[in-house]
Amino acid sequence: MAGNMLRKKVNIVIAQGGGPTAVINQSLAGAVSAALDEPHAGNILGAVHGIDGVLNREFIDMRRLGAGKLKTLASTPSSALGSVRHKPTEDDCRRMFEVFKEHSVGAFFYIGGNDSAETASIMASIAAADGFPLRCFHIPKTIDNDLCENDHTPGYGSAARFVAMAFLGDDLDNLALGGVKINIVMGRHAGFLTAASALARSAGGGPHLIYLPERTFSMSAFVSDVDRVMSKYGRCVAAVSEGICGSGGVPVAVAGATERDSHGNIQLSGTGALGDMLAAEVKNTLGIRRVRSDTFGYIQRSFPGAVSPVDSREARRAGEEAVRAAFSGDADSGSIAITREGDGASYCAGYKLVALSSVAGKTRRMPDGFISESGCDVTGEFIEYAAPLAGRMPRTVRLIR
Amino acid sequence: MAGNMLRKKVNIVIAQGGGPTAVINQSLAGAVSAALDEPHAGNILGAVHGIDGVLNREFIDMRRLGAGKLKTLASTPSSALGSVRHKPTEDDCRRMFEVFKEHSVGAFFYIGGNDSAETASIMASIAAADGFPLRCFHIPKTIDNDLCENDHTPGYGSAARFVAMAFLGDDLDNLALGGVKINIVMGRHAGFLTAASALARSAGGGPHLIYLPERTFSMSAFVSDVDRVMSKYGRCVAAVSEGICGSGGVPVAVAGATERDSHGNIQLSGTGALGDMLAAEVKNTLGIRRVRSDTFGYIQRSFPGAVSPVDSREARRAGEEAVRAAFSGDADSGSIAITREGDGASYCAGYKLVALSSVAGKTRRMPDGFISESGCDVTGEFIEYAAPLAGRMPRTVRLIR
Repeated sequence: MAGNMLRKKVNIVIAQGGGPTAVINQSLAGAVSAALDEPHAGNILGAVHGIDGVLNREFIDMRRLGAGKLKTLASTPSSALGSVRHKPTEDDCRRMFEVFKEHSVGAFFYIGGNDSAETASIMASIAAADGFPLRCFHIPKTIDNDLCENDHTPGYGSAARFVAMAFLGDDLDNLALGGVKINIVMGRHAGFLTAASALARSAGGGPHLIYLPERTFSMSAFVSDVDRVMSKYGRCVAAVSEGICGSGGVPVAVAGATERDSHGNIQLSGTGALGDMLAAEVKNTLGIRRVRSDTFGYIQRSFPGAVSPVDSREARRAGEEAVRAAFSGDADSGSIAITREGDGASYCAGYKLVALSSVAGKTRRMPDGFISESGCDVTGEFIEYAAPLAGRMPRTVRLIR
Repeated sequence: MAGNMLRKKVNIVIAQGGGPTAVINQSLAGAVSAALDEPHAGNILGAVHGIDGVLNREFIDMRRLGAGKLKTLASTPSSALGSVRHKPTEDDCRRMFEVFKEHSVGAFFYIGGNDSAETASIMASIAAADGFPLRCFHIPKTIDNDLCENDHTPGYGSAARFVAMAFLGDDLDNLALGGVKINIVMGRHAGFLTAASALARSAGGGPHLIYLPERTFSMSAFVSDVDRVMSKYGRCVAAVSEGICGSGGVPVAVAGATERDSHGNIQLSGTGALGDMLAAEVKNTLGIRRVRSDTFGYIQRSFPGAVSPVDSREARRAGEEAVRAAFSGDADSGSIAITREGDGASYCAGYKLVALSSVAGKTRRMPDGFISESGCDVTGEFIEYAAPLAGRMPRTVRLIR
């Protein structure tokens, strides 16, 4: 039984999977710090490029970092151990267990999204089936905020802060020069990050329209929404999720895209095609001269100048909690999930352990209560939900309308 | 003579032209503050949307803002008075003088780039020819950093900081996941902003390649540069200016673009086409699977989370200096130019008054000493030049290579 296992000293492996975030190394630093405090933790090994680092026996000795470097690591954006998008086969798992055996590894921690939770879940199942003694924990991270069981996930708050601040500045830019501005925001299946654009509105401006993957996108409705906003305000800023789908569930962006990773995800980011297509449609149909689109792209998840302090703290704590659960708890495996313990000014997060299977490979989408009836905006309920995660927005003055 | 004119009380108009920046309202607030201290300054009018605000008699009474709002205005990104891209005709100028006469306006301040300096220059010439009593001053701003007579311009430091921080995070993202990443940076004729990507390298990473409009772009050389970097590092991050031109001086981005403003500028921003084209070329020619491009777009100039403190202070001071020159100096017109009075740790800026004609409509490009012999990188001299303007970069840790 695993309960016995961790009464003796074991070595541990920590790895990072999926897309980086601005605070994913807070979780790494948190896990390492908690392990340093753990009398039964031996070597603390960082696997380079996720599970590929285990398969290739590429490890970094995290005990050698020292306190100063560990502190700087925590505030370094993007996955410092390197990442990977690789779904392990049964054979991969057994090869990893061989490596774990060689290195006397008794616990594995995977920091990542629902695909990484799936990897951890596969590893845990096969370990259990084989009777291989391994504690296997998932530490949540995703800017998409789409993990089940979680009120929200580490990485979301900072990406939401980036998006909100980008819209705050860009809405003022549009106010100064006019026309239509369309910004494409990351979020494959869930609209949480695109919805965060609404946090820019505190000062009474745009975005005027918000399109989420949770609602079917219609090009003609979009163009007529833009037309309506232009008539009312003489300008229009729209936030559009990269993952919007037309009727039939086909992503609007995906006309020519064919690239998939081994979890089956299609490439949506790293191209300006969706924004350009929407801008061309507005320009041609409505005859508006100044129509621009920007695709925020990868800087949403790694920009070091818009980190949410709440998100940083929670990411760190999630890493710590996973290590504590592995060494002090009864469970052989699990995922740390974040709960919400208070609202508004009394906002605070809680942490609970959930089954890997309840997070693995599953996608949480925006609840209906967060989406306005029009389908192209968010509700006040969403603003209350997201505001404490992204943190306070800078104050601005508007002299013109 | 103008010298006599400002011994009596006159009203003043301040306006903003061209593309917004993150600190252009520092210049506005600086000009307003200096005018509040000026015993001969009467009403302080902000013209809405640049010279169009004068023509349309749309003014904001800046004395009514109050100290608190003026302070928040200073740190608000983008042109708070609204902007315009409109080159005045002689007739426009005479219509403006009528409005100035009606409102007893004796001094006009235009915050903007070389096009706005050209507008101020045209207005000053016609005022002189007509014997219309007007002091006419230009306050510099441009993220492109391309104004003649200036060591650098307000707006550049903050945009450079945004670009450097975006590359810092994005290079770590590329380090984690690999492949080729191409980022398109603003800068129509001058590469200063694209070059600022090199400030991200302090921690020893990318960008590995930097393409500037000052050097002729060759697609085949670009692809072979990427190939060489991939062989050496197994990954590649490239910074590409939106303004790169092929042999013959035709912008690479411009294949299908036809939109021009009244100063003759072609639209390069607000589309992802250039990045997508370069990424497709790399992908198809080199057969690299993971090739991504992002176009930083408008958020480079208005993002509130990456403002350089040095840039803020200098932008404010430029506004103050213009008002002081108008009320205390002998010149009827001029442009405030920033000089460099020290280097490295002893960096500080100086301010001088130059003729409008020496800035108007002219473009300064990167000096040869800032561009490496390879033509696809910057020199140490450029780094020394730009580092104090963008401010200190966040410290990061790299665990892998």
